Amino acid sequence: MTKTHEIVIDKVKESKINSIDFSNLTFGKTFTDHMLECTWRDGEWHTAEIKPYGPIQVEPSCKVFHYGQAIFEGMKAFKDGEGDVFLFRPEDNWIRFNESAKRLAMPEVPKEVFMEGLKKLVNLDKEWVRYGEGLSLYLRPFMIASENGVAAAPGTEYKFMIIMSPAFAYYKGDVRVIIASEFSRAADGGVGYAKAAGNYAASFYPNNLALEEGYQQIIWTDAASHEYLEEAGTMNIFVRIGDKLLTAPNNDRILNGVTRRSIMQMAKDHGITVEERRVSVKELTAAANDGSLKEIFGTGTAAVIVPIKGYKHEDFKFELPTLESSYATLLMGALKDIQYNRAEDQHGWRVKI
Amino acid sequence: MTKTHEIVIDKVKESKINSIDFSNLTFGKTFTDHMLECTWRDGEWHTAEIKPYGPIQVEPSCKVFHYGQAIFEGMKAFKDGEGDVFLFRPEDNWIRFNESAKRLAMPEVPKEVFMEGLKKLVNLDKEWVRYGEGLSLYLRPFMIASENGVAAAPGTEYKFMIIMSPAFAYYKGDVRVIIASEFSRAADGGVGYAKAAGNYAASFYPNNLALEEGYQQIIWTDAASHEYLEEAGTMNIFVRIGDKLLTAPNNDRILNGVTRRSIMQMAKDHGITVEERRVSVKELTAAANDGSLKEIFGTGTAAVIVPIKGYKHEDFKFELPTLESSYATLLMGALKDIQYNRAEDQHGWRVKI
Repeated sequence: MTKTHEIVIDKVKESKINSIDFSNLTFGKTFTDHMLECTWRDGEWHTAEIKPYGPIQVEPSCKVFHYGQAIFEGMKAFKDGEGDVFLFRPEDNWIRFNESAKRLAMPEVPKEVFMEGLKKLVNLDKEWVRYGEGLSLYLRPFMIASENGVAAAPGTEYKFMIIMSPAFAYYKGDVRVIIASEFSRAADGGVGYAKAAGNYAASFYPNNLALEEGYQQIIWTDAASHEYLEEAGTMNIFVRIGDKLLTAPNNDRILNGVTRRSIMQMAKDHGITVEERRVSVKELTAAANDGSLKEIFGTGTAAVIVPIKGYKHEDFKFELPTLESSYATLLMGALKDIQYNRAEDQHGWRVKI
Repeated sequence: MTKTHEIVIDKVKESKINSIDFSNLTFGKTFTDHMLECTWRDGEWHTAEIKPYGPIQVEPSCKVFHYGQAIFEGMKAFKDGEGDVFLFRPEDNWIRFNESAKRLAMPEVPKEVFMEGLKKLVNLDKEWVRYGEGLSLYLRPFMIASENGVAAAPGTEYKFMIIMSPAFAYYKGDVRVIIASEFSRAADGGVGYAKAAGNYAASFYPNNLALEEGYQQIIWTDAASHEYLEEAGTMNIFVRIGDKLLTAPNNDRILNGVTRRSIMQMAKDHGITVEERRVSVKELTAAANDGSLKEIFGTGTAAVIVPIKGYKHEDFKFELPTLESSYATLLMGALKDIQYNRAEDQHGWRVKI
């Protein structure tokens, strides 16, 4: 289809930005002045509207409430010292969004609606992107089945929306993890690789149990054997053994992380050996015992890199060493330099608004 | 807690029942005059309200849209020839609802709110329960995370609601199934046993592929080996080999079906041998080949019993024989006789409104 997708803009009368305390932001609670909304109905996407952020009205029978047909993406916009605003690899998110859409039996969102909508929306609210270490604007494109009716079948009406929230940093404090040996996040042949809403709800209860034991996250393992590390639900996982960086290969249970791919590339750029292969709990624990396990860290859009301070697997507990020069610090710095336009963008990842 | 939960009622000024064509109902599209809504906030359930059915207003950041934290139940109310209205094993649904709530890290709904709310609501709209073969009122209790904010953590605010839809029959036409050998519905240690919204969305795409091949449903197999029959997503599955009725045992991937349990009991009451054990695709196909496979049927609240006319597994296709006296017909009749108050209720399953 070569149909042109129109985007209409209805601006707020007065911005609420002056009422926001940017030094005291809770992640994902404050939203900017505008949002984008585009409806799919009768087999096609209708006019996308950028309009004041505000509530939507839905019937209690709305399909998403009953059958969880919903997907999302997480992205960020960054501001440099000159006041220019950049997106980071946004097309990768658009591509993954549509991969999620396909697996959840939802219509794909045209590139024009996603990318132009995103750019116009960020541009309109660019005062909300603040300059400074760790500051960014978190972008949340999502799609829900908005049809009314409780028949268990894919919807015939969908809403694609983008909302935006100014963000400081996602994680606070030390992070220790439990390596899963009972609960699972995803099945082979399931939807683990998609950013499907239901994947997240499914992890809340096991994560609450971990929190009760003093662990902040879970590293999920394969459901069939619980022997191999997969991902942490909101982060992909890297392990440094000796000087090598290891991460699980993509499969249909693991999210194909944009930050994961970027970190792998940055590591290679810095001459670090990266192995994309299965890492067993046995290998991890052997490396912990012989002193070659140097680092574990998670990667994701919200947090960039989260160093893991310690882990527990069944009865085995291990505290990671404190390193003078960690890969986590090196790679996070290198990635942020690109994101904030402080370093050359040799891979063409930045997109200026 | 011995707190008493109040239920307040705000009636519609005028019923819309006269505008409804009860002879031409699409499943789950028409809703009765009233609904129940109860909010959990600040750690407790507030006053439940029965009020006119209508839209609710939510922010685009509403947690359920992003993380699929939502569960539901499916139940029915039946009317007998005297005009009396009955629920069928409603406490079983309440118990399972709270099992789902626990697994999805949501607050449990007090028995009083669920059961008394349901009874008061059905009583208020009892004109919507029609008497006649296959007619019923479909009841849909559900709960959503209604908090605003996109942090990936359990919500701190929830809405429990009940909506009701007059129903004729759920399935139309012959049903043939594909036995899954690639896609999966649930992982060991996952949420397959819960009525979690996301389980349903995850099945839509594989089911669409099956529909394209001319099959209406999928029988899911275990994700680890794809060797054992599990359930059909909206139905539990029974197989009759010779004179025995077989069904998969409950596990954390299979919904603990109320209709499944009722059918097992009815079968025993009729002297039929029921084996609750794993049934392999190999055993099924061997029985198909030697002529001992007599029936396959699905059970669930919406459809009661759905006879399966044929199945496909990889390259093997089989058409079930047409029987003069099938277990499906016998057991469906026996169950409906109890539901519609035409037979003695020896197990105490009916609850009169």
